Amino acid sequence: MGRIGERTLTFKKAPYIRGNGGVAGKDEKEGPIGAYFNTYFNDDLWGEKSWELTERKMFIRAVENAVTSAGLTLDDIQILFGGDLLNQIISAGFAARTLRAPFIGLYGACSTMSESLLVGAMAVDGGYADNVVCATSSHFATAERQFRYPLELGTPKTPTSQHTATAAGATVLSSTGQADDARITCATPGRVIDLKISDANNMGAAMAPAAVETLVTHLEDTKRDPNYYDLIITGDLGTFGSKLLVEYTAKENVDVKAVYTDCGVELYKGVKDMYCGGSGCGCSALMFNCYYLKKFKDKKINRILLIATGALHSPTTSMQGESIPCIAHAVAIERGEIIWNI
Amino acid sequence: MGRIGERTLTFKKAPYIRGNGGVAGKDEKEGPIGAYFNTYFNDDLWGEKSWELTERKMFIRAVENAVTSAGLTLDDIQILFGGDLLNQIISAGFAARTLRAPFIGLYGACSTMSESLLVGAMAVDGGYADNVVCATSSHFATAERQFRYPLELGTPKTPTSQHTATAAGATVLSSTGQADDARITCATPGRVIDLKISDANNMGAAMAPAAVETLVTHLEDTKRDPNYYDLIITGDLGTFGSKLLVEYTAKENVDVKAVYTDCGVELYKGVKDMYCGGSGCGCSALMFNCYYLKKFKDKKINRILLIATGALHSPTTSMQGESIPCIAHAVAIERGEIIWNI
Repeated sequence: MGRIGERTLTFKKAPYIRGNGGVAGKDEKEGPIGAYFNTYFNDDLWGEKSWELTERKMFIRAVENAVTSAGLTLDDIQILFGGDLLNQIISAGFAARTLRAPFIGLYGACSTMSESLLVGAMAVDGGYADNVVCATSSHFATAERQFRYPLELGTPKTPTSQHTATAAGATVLSSTGQADDARITCATPGRVIDLKISDANNMGAAMAPAAVETLVTHLEDTKRDPNYYDLIITGDLGTFGSKLLVEYTAKENVDVKAVYTDCGVELYKGVKDMYCGGSGCGCSALMFNCYYLKKFKDKKINRILLIATGALHSPTTSMQGESIPCIAHAVAIERGEIIWNI
Repeated sequence: MGRIGERTLTFKKAPYIRGNGGVAGKDEKEGPIGAYFNTYFNDDLWGEKSWELTERKMFIRAVENAVTSAGLTLDDIQILFGGDLLNQIISAGFAARTLRAPFIGLYGACSTMSESLLVGAMAVDGGYADNVVCATSSHFATAERQFRYPLELGTPKTPTSQHTATAAGATVLSSTGQADDARITCATPGRVIDLKISDANNMGAAMAPAAVETLVTHLEDTKRDPNYYDLIITGDLGTFGSKLLVEYTAKENVDVKAVYTDCGVELYKGVKDMYCGGSGCGCSALMFNCYYLKKFKDKKINRILLIATGALHSPTTSMQGESIPCIAHAVAIERGEIIWNI
């Protein structure tokens, strides 16, 4: 426990990522990463009568998958840290009713996966719990009707828009684990950054400055070079926002090109009509839990920095003429020798 | 750091409540506790052009008041833990843009004050931060138009309804403080409890079972008698929900009558047209920060258990026929000798 530099929290006991799980929708399963998604469904409802119920089911199943993969049961989970995009985080809240674990509700928009890992790691590293779950979800159809237009309208998209992933992901953090498990070693909480972009169809541009601010702060605090990490992974900046991130970091004399990637870009790469790529809480949650943690398990990577990014506006603030304040939380996941430059 | 029993987290370094602040609206200032509210405004807008901007201003001012009372500046605040009732927690998120502290967004509906104190205490007790702020807000007019009806309609209220407080409150938690400061010693995170009440105008009845479950668990975990505390304070059960709490706890052989009170009952006691009393995140936030912490300072009380209660439904879930899942988080605030029955 403790702090490095100004903002980064260090987890000296490095909570173990003991379990992980996810659920993918049809578009996600059919995309280039689809082979990694073992739990998926082939329509938009998964046997439920509303999309909201579908998203709730996805949240629950992702948590169950993660807990099972950890060799635990739901009774072993001392706190569930979670949230989602929907008003009053109803996916997470109603899922917690079913899951029965003590529940700390979070809202970080699409930054929720790394936000929950940051807070969950504090709980385990600080000795307040032995096993917690961090989880989030999103669904294309619930998000569209809440944030944009009824799907029935068939409203055309602008080129900078992104596609909210129908996806959920969950991570079990534990005080005990195996020697070669991935572990959370430190995290940098984000500040709210707003460069006055007000186009809700250009989230990548709105969120990129927040990701850059957190990333540069993280590297300064930890005295790490970007190449310390095998991968630096943003949540859902998409193709346009990712380009901006590379540009903006270069201006800060930080060259991330060799290690940088974005979940929103990778999830739908080559898929038609996905514009600038994926977005939504579930995008980074699914990619982190089912793709990057698999690469960890297969020993293809040993150190990553996950920076999920969120836009903290609402339809009300947009209608009232506000710009889009954004946030990004960075979480370092490492294995083997951890280098502390303190 | 550590845990007692099943669920209760203990904070062995007992973070100090170093600062506290609040903002009250007109009805709250004119109520029986009004004399305790030094920052208030006399209309519903406080010079802003929308109620949402007013609520944001209240959130910001509550945090500024708390930080000033702690003898600190905003630059000293390492993390702001906060949320509110509005979709996408826009009061907290946009306030964090102005306040510039790293921000962890929470959603616990009206349980947010104790939820933020629980997470904030973990951050300070665990050594991840020296100074954090925990804050929340609500506004009668923003809540009515989001959750119920446009005010312009003049919709009549049912007798079990409660009045969302126009109020904000903030607490600075620090790793250092004075010997007779109030300190956070332990906390019990809530589980989501739903006894199938679906009347959004009867929140007290919906939330009481969650408060009882958390309270009974807390007393069992800590092996404390209710009378260990000078006061056990629920957030906003109101007159009807409070009666239910006393009844339900009696069935569990727990007698809280001598020490039990409710912020929603006290805030508007004797005020006309407030039905079952106050509600909203700001209700317990204002009462805790400006009234109960003043009683602490004046040495009239030395041990309290704050149990803010939240209803995790949304207008969407209500329209889809769902009942109201509820949650309550308990936080113990103590001074002087702390008795651990471990």
